[in-house]
Amino acid sequence: MKIPVVENILSANERLAEENARTLAREGVTAVNIMASPGAGKTSLIVQTIGALSERVRIGVIEGDVASRVDADTIEALGIPVVQINTGGTCHLDANMVHGALGELPLDQLDLLFIENVGNLICPTEFALGEALKVMIASVPEGDDKPYKYPGMFAAVDAIVVNKIDILPYVEFDLAGFRQLVTGLNTEVQVFEVSCKSGEGIAAWADWLMAVTADKDS
Amino acid sequence: MKIPVVENILSANERLAEENARTLAREGVTAVNIMASPGAGKTSLIVQTIGALSERVRIGVIEGDVASRVDADTIEALGIPVVQINTGGTCHLDANMVHGALGELPLDQLDLLFIENVGNLICPTEFALGEALKVMIASVPEGDDKPYKYPGMFAAVDAIVVNKIDILPYVEFDLAGFRQLVTGLNTEVQVFEVSCKSGEGIAAWADWLMAVTADKDS
Repeated sequence: MKIPVVENILSANERLAEENARTLAREGVTAVNIMASPGAGKTSLIVQTIGALSERVRIGVIEGDVASRVDADTIEALGIPVVQINTGGTCHLDANMVHGALGELPLDQLDLLFIENVGNLICPTEFALGEALKVMIASVPEGDDKPYKYPGMFAAVDAIVVNKIDILPYVEFDLAGFRQLVTGLNTEVQVFEVSCKSGEGIAAWADWLMAVTADKDS
Repeated sequence: MKIPVVENILSANERLAEENARTLAREGVTAVNIMASPGAGKTSLIVQTIGALSERVRIGVIEGDVASRVDADTIEALGIPVVQINTGGTCHLDANMVHGALGELPLDQLDLLFIENVGNLICPTEFALGEALKVMIASVPEGDDKPYKYPGMFAAVDAIVVNKIDILPYVEFDLAGFRQLVTGLNTEVQVFEVSCKSGEGIAAWADWLMAVTADKDS
């Protein structure tokens, strides 16, 4: 369905996203928009990355969900500044929601900000938030055919984290074929293979994130 | 974000959905709207159910995806009438898309019509299609906390199919706790536990579907 007002909404969003990006740059904060299907492991990846990096950088989190604050509670228990956004019925975060959340965070005391988007592989790519990096998580049990069905997401991101590789023996998932499909859609993308359960692969992902963050700062 | 035209769009959709429902009733077809996250097993459940029921009823399928026709190809290979809808960027099917697809199906030769919605736990519940039944698939590796985050979906459906129970030994998923959470949101809902990989539980789900379909016909 085409809604005539959508273009105006998107360009208003774009302007606010640029304002968010300026605020974040001024405070020296690198924001990472984490997108994935429901249950792919967005919060788990953030928790693991906090474990890997919290002694090297100061981290904050914005949690986006249709309802509940279970994820924010998980992050808060780690002693990390966190703001929960509940979107009501909306299937993605937008720059205005993030603008509000930025005002509630101690930005001058942060280096890295994870923005966990709503669980959805479609609309989040259309709404810039002011982030420096877009990352998606692809979960092994979802199957290796998702790039065919959600090409916009796979094309839009800077990195793809393939999570739940500990389940690989129990499901059909062709890692080599998946990598080939993904790089066909996005030649620049970084692909990481991790298990947020065992911690496997987290170090390589976290090191890349640190390198990119340092790059953005310099 | 609130868009003022949304209410008008929803009521236009409602009218078209009622028209679809009348068409389906006239032709004696029971339509089942299958909703789930990406990769939860919508197509796999349809394939398994076709295997269980195709000698008892005449089945057709409408496949909804943002892009590709890989799922339609899977269904077509079974000799089942199928129409693929590609939504472009839209994150749900609507009654107008289904209206078009109904015109391409031999409705007078069908008893049961599966409508596989776009992989998304949020917006599909807001757009009636003219279906007799709403079913969602909850996939075990997504975790047991999804009812907290997507309460609208869990509250809206007639049945929840918990898929990938073969993976239960390898992930944390509290089935009893999940059932309790779900019935708190939806006292009438039927919950089935299945593995589309092994076929476990499919017979009970298929029998229920036949019983409900017979009920709707009488």
